[in-house]
Amino acid sequence: TTCKIGLFDMNGTILEKWEIKTNTENHGAAILDDVAAAVLGKLDEKNISKEEVQGIGLGVPGPVGPDGTVFKCVNLGWDVLNVEKELSEKTGIFVKVGNDANVAALGEMWKGGGAGYKNLIMVTLGTGVGGGIVIRRQVLVGANAIAGEWGHNPLPRLAAADQPAPDCYCGHQGCIETYLSGPGLAADHAHHTGETLAAATIEHRALGGDSACEATLRRYEDRLGRALAGVINILDPQVIVLGGGLSNMQRLYRHLPACCAPYVFSDAVDTRFLPPVHGDSSGVRGAAWLWD
Amino acid sequence: TTCKIGLFDMNGTILEKWEIKTNTENHGAAILDDVAAAVLGKLDEKNISKEEVQGIGLGVPGPVGPDGTVFKCVNLGWDVLNVEKELSEKTGIFVKVGNDANVAALGEMWKGGGAGYKNLIMVTLGTGVGGGIVIRRQVLVGANAIAGEWGHNPLPRLAAADQPAPDCYCGHQGCIETYLSGPGLAADHAHHTGETLAAATIEHRALGGDSACEATLRRYEDRLGRALAGVINILDPQVIVLGGGLSNMQRLYRHLPACCAPYVFSDAVDTRFLPPVHGDSSGVRGAAWLWD
Repeated sequence: TTCKIGLFDMNGTILEKWEIKTNTENHGAAILDDVAAAVLGKLDEKNISKEEVQGIGLGVPGPVGPDGTVFKCVNLGWDVLNVEKELSEKTGIFVKVGNDANVAALGEMWKGGGAGYKNLIMVTLGTGVGGGIVIRRQVLVGANAIAGEWGHNPLPRLAAADQPAPDCYCGHQGCIETYLSGPGLAADHAHHTGETLAAATIEHRALGGDSACEATLRRYEDRLGRALAGVINILDPQVIVLGGGLSNMQRLYRHLPACCAPYVFSDAVDTRFLPPVHGDSSGVRGAAWLWD
Repeated sequence: TTCKIGLFDMNGTILEKWEIKTNTENHGAAILDDVAAAVLGKLDEKNISKEEVQGIGLGVPGPVGPDGTVFKCVNLGWDVLNVEKELSEKTGIFVKVGNDANVAALGEMWKGGGAGYKNLIMVTLGTGVGGGIVIRRQVLVGANAIAGEWGHNPLPRLAAADQPAPDCYCGHQGCIETYLSGPGLAADHAHHTGETLAAATIEHRALGGDSACEATLRRYEDRLGRALAGVINILDPQVIVLGGGLSNMQRLYRHLPACCAPYVFSDAVDTRFLPPVHGDSSGVRGAAWLWD
C-alpha cells in the first residue's frame, strides 16, 4: 500500500523518513517511476548530487534473484522484472534489491531487536506471512530465492478448531499465511463468531475482557506456536524477531514460549521471541544495510 | 548397531576402515571404552604414537552442545554425557564430537555428492530420519543443537492413505520419522497389505513387478515429497543429498523432483537430489573433517 523511504548517512544513521503511495494500477507500471521521482526530488531538496550517493537499497515483496531480478510480486502486480537495472536507469544511481522480509531481518540484526545475535529469523505477521533468515550475519536467500517462505507451508497438526484449509493465492490450500496473517486472524474470528472485526479491534476487545476475542487470540497463538515450532526444529535460531502489524500485540512475547514448547523436538529448546526495535522501519534500515 | 571407524592421513585420505559392534547394554556404558580400545589397538598395530595423531572425530546419534556434551542419545542409551571429555580421557588424544547427521553432511560436502555446493542438506533415511544442514560450507548446529531435526516435524498434508498418526519415541505423534524411516515404510506396507516385509524386500519385489509393493513405494515417495517440500520452502538448498539405508533406492532420485514440485512455493524451484558418494562412509569422513 505504501513505499517507505529513508535517507541515510554513511554511518547508517537515518536522517529523514517519509512514504509515498504505491500505485498498483496497470500491473504496477508506475511504481519505479514514482520511487525514482521521490528519491531524485529529495536529493534536489537537500542539494545532494548523485555522485555523493553511495547507492539505493530497495526491498520488494517477492523473491529476488542474484542479479536483482524479481520473479512475480503478486501484491504489486509485477511479473518478471529486473528491478536493479530499471531503477538504476531511471535514477542514474546504483541500486541493490532484496526481498522485503530479508531486508527487514537485516534491519533488525544490524541495530535492532536482533543486534548481537548471529543467527536469527525475522518473522513477518501482517497482510502476508513471510520470513527472513540470517545465519552468521548474512541473509540466506536460497538457491531459488525462496528461503524463509515458511508462510507457504501448511499449518501443522490441524485441529478441530482450525477452519477447513483455506485457499491461498500461491495455489495451495491451508498455508500458514491463510491462518496467521491479519486477514487470516479476522477470518478465523468471523468463522467462530459470525462477527467481522479487524485484527486490531479483536486485540482491543480482548484486552477489555471480551471472551470471544480472547478465545480467537488463544487459537491464533496456538497456531503460531505450532507453525514456529516447525521452523525451530529445522533452523533452531537463537532469536525470532516478530515484524509486521500483528507484532504489535505484546501478549505474543509473553505467550509464545509456552505455545511453541509442546511442539518442539527437545525440552531444552530455549528460543527467544523479541519485538522489532524499529517497527515498520526495519525494512528501510535493512535496505540501507545492503550497501554496508 | 555398529560403530564405523576410519584411519585418515593428514590429507583426508582414508587408509583403513572397519567397524565394531555397539554394545547398548547397561545404558551404553561400555561404548566409549570399546571405541577407545579399537582406536588404541589400531595405533599399536600400525606403530603410530599418540603424539602423531591430530585428533579423533566422532559422530553420535543425538544433539551435541558446543563443548562436546551429548544430550540424550536414545538409540545408545546415553543420557547427558560429555563425550569429548570422556573419550579424550580414555585415549589421551584430543576429541571433537558432532551429530551423526551433521558429520555425514560434512562428509558429502567435503569430497562427496555435495562437493562444489556451498549450501546443501543431507537427509538421512534409515532407522531414523535426520538431517544435516551445511550453509556456506559450515554445519548449522543451531542454538540448542537441534537444527536439521525435520524428521520430528509432523508429516504435512495428511491424506486418507496415511495411517493414523503413529507415536514417536520423541513424545509426539505423526512425526515424519514414523512414516519415512525404514521401519515406517515397513509399517505402512503392513498397514495396507497385512504383510510384514522389510524395506529392502519391498523394493526388490516392486522391481519385480509386485503392484502392492510398488503402491507402497509410491505412497512413500509422495510423503517424502510433501515432507521435503516443507524443508525446501524454508532453506531452499542447492542440493539435497540422501543418506541412510533407504538412499540406496535409485528410484528416489528419478521420482523426487516431481513428488516435491506440487508442494513447493514457487514453480521455478529446481532443487537437485543426489545420492551419497560415500555410502555409509559419509559420517566417518565428516568426523575426520571436524579436524580439517
